[in-house]
Amino acid sequence: MPIAGVQRIDHIAIAVRDIDAALAFYRDTLGIAPSEIKDVPTEGVRIAFLPMGGPDGSKIELIQPLDPANSIGRFIDKHGEGQHHICLAVADIDAALAQLQAEGVPVLDQTPRIAAEGRAVFIHPKGAHGVLVELVQPAE
Amino acid sequence: MPIAGVQRIDHIAIAVRDIDAALAFYRDTLGIAPSEIKDVPTEGVRIAFLPMGGPDGSKIELIQPLDPANSIGRFIDKHGEGQHHICLAVADIDAALAQLQAEGVPVLDQTPRIAAEGRAVFIHPKGAHGVLVELVQPAE
Repeated sequence: MPIAGVQRIDHIAIAVRDIDAALAFYRDTLGIAPSEIKDVPTEGVRIAFLPMGGPDGSKIELIQPLDPANSIGRFIDKHGEGQHHICLAVADIDAALAQLQAEGVPVLDQTPRIAAEGRAVFIHPKGAHGVLVELVQPAE
Repeated sequence: MPIAGVQRIDHIAIAVRDIDAALAFYRDTLGIAPSEIKDVPTEGVRIAFLPMGGPDGSKIELIQPLDPANSIGRFIDKHGEGQHHICLAVADIDAALAQLQAEGVPVLDQTPRIAAEGRAVFIHPKGAHGVLVELVQPAE
């Protein structure tokens, strides 16, 4: 039984060494203005959201590690800068998680985590053909 | 001067070994129905578009190499399955390309190519912090 309510791309996350340097391309060349740049000390990262127009609200999220030893820092060490994960919005994250667990899809969260955009669950890339997929129920 | 009119994510492209196997996750588990599955012999690939709701029209594109020696086949050999590129819609691809060239951004196309969704230009990952970025002017 499929998960109900996967309706849109919430964001595409890109791991970068330095947000200011990345904004020289994404903001100054592509012309996508960031709506917010903030440090998330609990995750050890700095993030910038670059929303694009439309009611859909899809965003690019730039993520810079503040600690080279955390997961984003290790990702860049191993792969270089680049696409880190994609995030799809769902209507009901608890129902989505229960469905994934019932189907044996490997997840990184056994209960939804509190993410910047709402309550979220990550699906392991081995369950999603090589893609780290985040599902989020956006906060009201 | 930024490129005018980068307004939305057109699609996220994922390289997979076998579209039918990938649909077991993206269609049957996530519940995103493909609108189209087709072979593109000139590119040596089979593609599936999985549109999500809303006027925005963001899609996931699954790409399967029909020839292991082409660029998608080599990508999978090197990196495994996973995110291949992101595509952003622009209002005027000719103006966008001229702007990129004027700023010295490395592009893979010196004139727009004819892609599935419209006329398109690819930006080399070294110019976009590790991300292969496609810009497309969607066909009317």
